[in-house]
Amino acid sequence: MRITVLSGGVGGARFTRGLLATLAQRGESPDVQVIANTGDDITMHGLRICPDIDTILYTLGGGADEDRGWGLTDEGYRVQEGLAAYGAEPGWFTLGDRDFATHIARTQWLTEGASLTEVTGRLAARWGLPEKGVTLRPMSDVPVETHAVIDGPQGEEALHFQEWWVRGGAQPTPSRFIVAGLDRASAAPGVLDAIRTADLVLLPPSNPVVSIGIILGVPGVRDALRGTSAPVVGVSPIIAGRPVRGHADTCLDAIGVPSTAAGVAGLYRDFLDGWLVDPADAAPAPTRQGPTVRAHHRDLLMDGADDEADLATAALDLAHDVRR
Amino acid sequence: MRITVLSGGVGGARFTRGLLATLAQRGESPDVQVIANTGDDITMHGLRICPDIDTILYTLGGGADEDRGWGLTDEGYRVQEGLAAYGAEPGWFTLGDRDFATHIARTQWLTEGASLTEVTGRLAARWGLPEKGVTLRPMSDVPVETHAVIDGPQGEEALHFQEWWVRGGAQPTPSRFIVAGLDRASAAPGVLDAIRTADLVLLPPSNPVVSIGIILGVPGVRDALRGTSAPVVGVSPIIAGRPVRGHADTCLDAIGVPSTAAGVAGLYRDFLDGWLVDPADAAPAPTRQGPTVRAHHRDLLMDGADDEADLATAALDLAHDVRR
Repeated sequence: MRITVLSGGVGGARFTRGLLATLAQRGESPDVQVIANTGDDITMHGLRICPDIDTILYTLGGGADEDRGWGLTDEGYRVQEGLAAYGAEPGWFTLGDRDFATHIARTQWLTEGASLTEVTGRLAARWGLPEKGVTLRPMSDVPVETHAVIDGPQGEEALHFQEWWVRGGAQPTPSRFIVAGLDRASAAPGVLDAIRTADLVLLPPSNPVVSIGIILGVPGVRDALRGTSAPVVGVSPIIAGRPVRGHADTCLDAIGVPSTAAGVAGLYRDFLDGWLVDPADAAPAPTRQGPTVRAHHRDLLMDGADDEADLATAALDLAHDVRR
Repeated sequence: MRITVLSGGVGGARFTRGLLATLAQRGESPDVQVIANTGDDITMHGLRICPDIDTILYTLGGGADEDRGWGLTDEGYRVQEGLAAYGAEPGWFTLGDRDFATHIARTQWLTEGASLTEVTGRLAARWGLPEKGVTLRPMSDVPVETHAVIDGPQGEEALHFQEWWVRGGAQPTPSRFIVAGLDRASAAPGVLDAIRTADLVLLPPSNPVVSIGIILGVPGVRDALRGTSAPVVGVSPIIAGRPVRGHADTCLDAIGVPSTAAGVAGLYRDFLDGWLVDPADAAPAPTRQGPTVRAHHRDLLMDGADDEADLATAALDLAHDVRR
């Protein structure tokens, strides 16, 4: 079964890890295409950083610092301390030494003329993704950068997503998001095919606005989702009206969508076939198949490997029901 | 007294440190311009590395790993290990994590449009050079890269200096050196003035071919040395016919100059006023002032702070004699 996953960072990475565990339990050989959001990407210290791609690499590759929720285990901070001593800006984004190696290699290869797709393939090889049956693709090879528009002292101000999210703790609530480059971006090679030819498309509980929402904005992606014959099954990132992690509620506020499981499903209504929601949430919303999604109520929290696999199992079961 | 030093890496950096110690002992407030060779510079992993400048920064700034002879103390190697895991080339040049911060900051600032002179000034500020009365300048803001021409299996081959020196251990002896960019290079701002307006110009025991020899090749530098009214005093890098450190003998062989104190002095004969040689070496060679340099015989080895200061003292004494 060919499965395509549209992924942001931590939520998508852990969900995909659970999916691989579930497929292994079932004795199925995995063939998983992960399409990663690159709207969080940023150039810092002259180095190209792709936070969602890196989180997926490190999580699936067994290097992620799970407790902290970002970066690598066994990290040092000598580079960052050195840069701070030089007064090199910005100082608010923490990068570990092992993590720097990723950004240095990526930047070197991009500068040499490789596409982000090619570079991501090389990085994925080091983290063993091909052996796990995973192909990781950026949504686009064209740089796309999300900005949060906020009311500053001098009027409207557009902050790079990372500055707003990491430095500002996703405060204040933006009046809107501007995604620089998105209208001119084209889907990276293989992305649209991965959606069109999949046997199943999964939306993990990633941020529906600044992660999955950005992927959906890449020209052609939404059409591919509408047109695919594969069932499209999503997992709500909202449990009991609250985001599982990150700041999905603030992001939904910014685009005027209620922070509910049904509210998020509404963003996907033109292509969604199944929607996994928590017992605490009201489910339905219109879908491609009819008046409502088929909603399985279950606990959506992922806390450890068992939860990840259970959630992936539930998504696969829902897909099976939808398909019948 | 305004002193200008033409410097390669370790030898020049330690000599300059000794000079500062001597000036402090004498109660003189230092005003030292160090002009650094940049012919060893190389771009690796997309980062601009200036080995001689960095050695001077770290040595004068108190961060150098003295035992090893390169790099910084308290180093880690997580970045390098990470790059090796990615298969990022080259793997033969060891860079520490703290050292990477220097190259990342430099590359970022150069990319933003700062000159190497400006970048070097910012790096020098972090290492406290201005407070020590030292202005560190690159010989040129134009990239210059030395290559060793060797006989390879396919005929002549030009290896970047670092590849020949670090990877190959300065083997085999080159048939010649090619210094890419040197003929088009101009001296960096302040370099020619520093030579012309100095009260004393010092040549530390740096490599006469690939360090000082490269600086001398920058258009205008040799003329400035010939024309300056300051005495020009050098320290032989050859003791008893052997190079103090590095591979000066191999480099001298490559250009057909005997590896003797007199042989090296011959390279400087058109501007040299004083030449400090070891008792074991024959001294003289023709000079700008007359038939021979004034040679002080003394032990030239620098092994620790006392030796460094003693050598600088000897150079200052010789300059005093020459001036009379």
